[in-house]
Amino acid sequence: MSKVFSTSLRCRLPVLLFFFQGALLVLFALFVTYDEHTDAASQPPDADPSANQLYAIFSLFQDIQLMLLVGLGLLLAFMKGYGISAVAYNFLMANFATQWALIVQGFVYHYHQGKIHLGLYNILTAEFAAVTVLISAGAILGHTSSLQLLLMALCEVPLYVACEWLTVSHFRVVDIGGTITLHIFACYFGLGVSLALYRPGLQEGHPKAVPSYLSDFLSLVGTIILWVFWPSFIAALIRQGDAQHRAVLHTWITLSASALTSFATSSLLDKKGKLTLGHLQNATLAGGVAIGAVADMAITPTGAFAMGILSALACILGFQYMTPFLASKIRLQDHCGIHNLHGLPGIIGAMGGIAAILLIPDENYGLQLYQVFPPRAPPLDNTTMAEAASTGQELGRTASRQALYQVAGLGSSFIISLAGGFLTGLVLRLPFLGQPPDDLCFDDSLYFKIPRLTEALHAGPSHEDLQMPLKDHDYQLQDSTVQMSANL
Amino acid sequence: MSKVFSTSLRCRLPVLLFFFQGALLVLFALFVTYDEHTDAASQPPDADPSANQLYAIFSLFQDIQLMLLVGLGLLLAFMKGYGISAVAYNFLMANFATQWALIVQGFVYHYHQGKIHLGLYNILTAEFAAVTVLISAGAILGHTSSLQLLLMALCEVPLYVACEWLTVSHFRVVDIGGTITLHIFACYFGLGVSLALYRPGLQEGHPKAVPSYLSDFLSLVGTIILWVFWPSFIAALIRQGDAQHRAVLHTWITLSASALTSFATSSLLDKKGKLTLGHLQNATLAGGVAIGAVADMAITPTGAFAMGILSALACILGFQYMTPFLASKIRLQDHCGIHNLHGLPGIIGAMGGIAAILLIPDENYGLQLYQVFPPRAPPLDNTTMAEAASTGQELGRTASRQALYQVAGLGSSFIISLAGGFLTGLVLRLPFLGQPPDDLCFDDSLYFKIPRLTEALHAGPSHEDLQMPLKDHDYQLQDSTVQMSANL
Amino acid sequence: MSKVFSTSLRCRLPVLLFFFQGALLVLFALFVTYDEHTDAASQPPDADPSANQLYAIFSLFQDIQLMLLVGLGLLLAFMKGYGISAVAYNFLMANFATQWALIVQGFVYHYHQGKIHLGLYNILTAEFAAVTVLISAGAILGHTSSLQLLLMALCEVPLYVACEWLTVSHFRVVDIGGTITLHIFACYFGLGVSLALYRPGLQEGHPKAVPSYLSDFLSLVGTIILWVFWPSFIAALIRQGDAQHRAVLHTWITLSASALTSFATSSLLDKKGKLTLGHLQNATLAGGVAIGAVADMAITPTGAFAMGILSALACILGFQYMTPFLASKIRLQDHCGIHNLHGLPGIIGAMGGIAAILLIPDENYGLQLYQVFPPRAPPLDNTTMAEAASTGQELGRTASRQALYQVAGLGSSFIISLAGGFLTGLVLRLPFLGQPPDDLCFDDSLYFKIPRLTEALHAGPSHEDLQMPLKDHDYQLQDSTVQMSANL
Repeated sequence: MSKVFSTSLRCRLPVLLFFFQGALLVLFALFVTYDEHTDAASQPPDADPSANQLYAIFSLFQDIQLMLLVGLGLLLAFMKGYGISAVAYNFLMANFATQWALIVQGFVYHYHQGKIHLGLYNILTAEFAAVTVLISAGAILGHTSSLQLLLMALCEVPLYVACEWLTVSHFRVVDIGGTITLHIFACYFGLGVSLALYRPGLQEGHPKAVPSYLSDFLSLVGTIILWVFWPSFIAALIRQGDAQHRAVLHTWITLSASALTSFATSSLLDKKGKLTLGHLQNATLAGGVAIGAVADMAITPTGAFAMGILSALACILGFQYMTPFLASKIRLQDHCGIHNLHGLPGIIGAMGGIAAILLIPDENYGLQLYQVFPPRAPPLDNTTMAEAASTGQELGRTASRQALYQVAGLGSSFIISLAGGFLTGLVLRLPFLGQPPDDLCFDDSLYFKIPRLTEALHAGPSHEDLQMPLKDHDYQLQDSTVQMSANL
Repeated sequence: MSKVFSTSLRCRLPVLLFFFQGALLVLFALFVTYDEHTDAASQPPDADPSANQLYAIFSLFQDIQLMLLVGLGLLLAFMKGYGISAVAYNFLMANFATQWALIVQGFVYHYHQGKIHLGLYNILTAEFAAVTVLISAGAILGHTSSLQLLLMALCEVPLYVACEWLTVSHFRVVDIGGTITLHIFACYFGLGVSLALYRPGLQEGHPKAVPSYLSDFLSLVGTIILWVFWPSFIAALIRQGDAQHRAVLHTWITLSASALTSFATSSLLDKKGKLTLGHLQNATLAGGVAIGAVADMAITPTGAFAMGILSALACILGFQYMTPFLASKIRLQDHCGIHNLHGLPGIIGAMGGIAAILLIPDENYGLQLYQVFPPRAPPLDNTTMAEAASTGQELGRTASRQALYQVAGLGSSFIISLAGGFLTGLVLRLPFLGQPPDDLCFDDSLYFKIPRLTEALHAGPSHEDLQMPLKDHDYQLQDSTVQMSANL
Repeated sequence: MSKVFSTSLRCRLPVLLFFFQGALLVLFALFVTYDEHTDAASQPPDADPSANQLYAIFSLFQDIQLMLLVGLGLLLAFMKGYGISAVAYNFLMANFATQWALIVQGFVYHYHQGKIHLGLYNILTAEFAAVTVLISAGAILGHTSSLQLLLMALCEVPLYVACEWLTVSHFRVVDIGGTITLHIFACYFGLGVSLALYRPGLQEGHPKAVPSYLSDFLSLVGTIILWVFWPSFIAALIRQGDAQHRAVLHTWITLSASALTSFATSSLLDKKGKLTLGHLQNATLAGGVAIGAVADMAITPTGAFAMGILSALACILGFQYMTPFLASKIRLQDHCGIHNLHGLPGIIGAMGGIAAILLIPDENYGLQLYQVFPPRAPPLDNTTMAEAASTGQELGRTASRQALYQVAGLGSSFIISLAGGFLTGLVLRLPFLGQPPDDLCFDDSLYFKIPRLTEALHAGPSHEDLQMPLKDHDYQLQDSTVQMSANL
């Protein structure tokens, strides 16, 4: 970044967004229509209104929206002078990526009779695609412009859909909570981008990339919001009944074990036994990342408990030892530590899934075996067998064969995301994308009109106090800290 | 306000509230009883507990409460030294107006056999009445006392119920999400009040009526909470099934389009391309206001998308050009910009509703046509025809006839609210209502015991630092800024 | 506390938590299995997935988690420099106590065939046990270490389960919302602990135990979150149908009456009529505490209304007059005022329950009488009568007999909790538990690595301002206030 390009996005951001909205509007007009749950004209006369698909997913959908837009937004706002950007960009990317995923997934999964058929379910799955973007952005947040983040979303969403199709539809990997397809993909995509965007000037850290008391506090509140609603996130795409109940139970247990383990480990690693908020903000959620791969399997409550302990340990040890190691050895800049929260626990979860497939006896599933593991179901008859052959899908897999496919899925997700992320990162290096220069990284005031004390100055003193003249340099001092409580 | 009246509300606020609570208690004792969903004695022996009306509305009700009390509270807390008042008064008004609406709506809609019959549904509809008060208050918040706000609620709720009865029950206007009956009514009522309360001393703005970094941040979080739960608000009173599903889908799409359009437009309007938080805090919600009028119509996802773009554009352009124009031309003081968020998008929504009624072919609704447009249903038989005639209601309306009634509803709502608001505002000018003098507007410490640094002073230094003597003037300085991070 | 022990918890906190997690893991492995709602293998072939118990409780469970971890956390964070501890310890205790209660309640209520059977219902009831710990902690928060809080949880949970068994299972007390078994128990347990932990050095108050503008603001937001979700908390364990609907209705009415009464009373008690945030943060919730004892009884909306007014009055008057009295007379230190929010309204609720049992005619319940009051149901036949005799339970109670048992339950809960709390407090006085010395109470930085300005110092000035040299003493000053906006 020897040369500083203009960081004004006045032309470029509106052009990108208006073009995107215009294109979406045209695509909607040409291709999008209601699905059978939202189309008034296609309702049969005897339709049971309370059986509409809406009621199976709406409250989970609301939980997930709150979690992503408020919880994750606050969690990302942990830097003293970058809170507004964190929340606003998180909101911006979520909307951009969800709209984009509606179209991409629509053509892949919901396109028939020349139309994409749309209902709330599409938005729910599109939000899962958007989550990958939000996670990946964690690696580069603060030293990228909104333009770069949106372009990343534009690249990442189709690759996520392709990779998800490969692993889930083609390999028939069982990964109901998205540990492999979502967390691992998002993590290594983000790290790939970050590798390509490597900035030597930030290698020694950045003076503004530190929390204040208040930003740390609010970030902890954001973590707890994510923690509370994580079971809804895991359960959202699981079929109703005992499987969804099991997933909720496992998720709570693993998160709770992660929480206590985080407090214990964080205290242990400090020489005075003090707790580090960064550990609590991340590792308390680690079990939730891992559990996705096994959420509805019969891993027993004990398995979920152990997974929560292991994941939290891995996450905190990652922050303590692996992040500095990777930063110095392969120049990996991982601003929010997504490798510790999504990478390591994701791998633990994927491994746990393979172990669960190999070790849990089939009889523990009773009649539910083929519902938890659809690719293990035998072909029902010749027609199905023929179909299976024609579509290249294997059916009637053994447990060990399924385990091999899980390995294939994990490997594909890892390689595709890392390579795709690196290539995307190279694109994001284009100089006209408004990347902030080093000294203006992690600074809300670069892209936002931030209230400054200069305005407040005109406010004059309050009505009850201030009998003494003020000295200018005090205001000057405070004017220099337009950020979240840096002076707290 | 040449003469400053006492702003101590010690006698007046408790008297009003205790009298109100006492009167309510008497009215409850005389007139209120359980409805058929809450009365134990009237349950039939074979009642299906899971079919109780509670389960159709409870989670929507909780969403709406969170949205109004936390989301809207935080959104309104965007001024640096008026956050506590904003949240507390929002909470106070919501409770006062909902209780009052329980009685008023109770006598109009739920009174039979000498009793008002009460269940959660009554509270839900009463909260919609309370929303009008919360919106209207946005025009005058900061330069009114709690007494004035409560008196406004006392006047507004009955007028809202009357106007709603006229438009929805008499004109049979279709406005399932309350665009006309709620948003437009609330907006112009609030502007009417504000016109009557015009204060020349605030014409040039007020030094305390500015956001701080932190209050702007928290206000943005409040906006996002509103954004997340808006689909619940729109869907709450729509019948179950595809109609409710369609409303949720439309609402999400329109809000998402509004969100991206807000970022684009806000950046475009700044000469450096920087984003203005006030735009994001309002315009991202604009589509939600507009969609209410057409939420369950077959407007197609494309229609919802276009409505979101248009509403957000209108909202931001309103802030940029119309607010200054109205302020200078007709001396309209609109503190929170409710005309931009509720007025302009409301009109867009109402117009969209008329267009949708005229343009969408009946066959797009299939068998649902008369469920979406009940007044278009033909009289079933002579009895019903006679009933229709006797109650003055038209049935079997054509689309264009229904459109005319929509125009009539829009016009009535506009005129009644503006006139009613202006008259209410004249009442609120009574001098003993504790209106704050100009220089004490937008100041929490006028009506709240606010923690001050003088208390913190006694706290002494923290245990690890502060080896140097402090100078008094520093504390004096800070004592003068008892507000939300004014010095951030 | 003449001698200051080391407050470093590096060894002790991790040891306790790791030991606890290890022990839980072993107990889970030995004793815990799925219940019939989560076990895949035991699902019958014709199971209706949508009838799974999950769907009756999941959204209530999520509401309660949000309420306890976010709402209560923020409410407790009302001190300027103790917000991080309040939120983090609340989260820590909730997880610790819930896990512990899963085991204790599991052996008491869910143990058969050598296994504890686990589903989400267990976690829900375990969270009720955890609530007692969170309430009790309110009395001693700020002058105790995390180690002491966890040990308190370790003692309190089994005593709570025992006391609940005595009152609910043995005495058959009707207390569906936990007024007696939960709020009164938690309150007097906490006060017992506080009596035993009496610290003369804090008798005159503590300079750090004061709110700042911002901490008071966020605490108010926390209160409102609790207020919004309180109906879910009350309704969670009530059977579906009209009873649950009635409980939701009563809870909303009583909370709303408490809210308005709080504003009125708080204003009345200040000589300038200003509102005190501490009153609003507590008394607006008082009705919710009281209503638990009568939530599904036919107390009429009027009864709920009156209970809300009375409870809020008692709560504020308690803060104003009773807390200072108890502090001076019996040296009771009640940091958060739990006696005012949980003790007094709890007693009002329990008395109201007795009055409701005696005064409401049986016919007001119709066929639901024995569902609201199971112990009043007559023995069905000889077998049941024999069972009743063998287990010592009375059946076919008259209303007045049931009322006597309510008195017995109230008395037992009061005595057991106060004595158990006092004994627990004596244990917590053990010197190696890391209790903070007086001057380090209410200080986040004792147990947390808090961001300090010393870090921010290196950040240097922002890019646009600060043309003047800074004086060191300004930073020194601010360095001394590492807390939530103490300088606001």
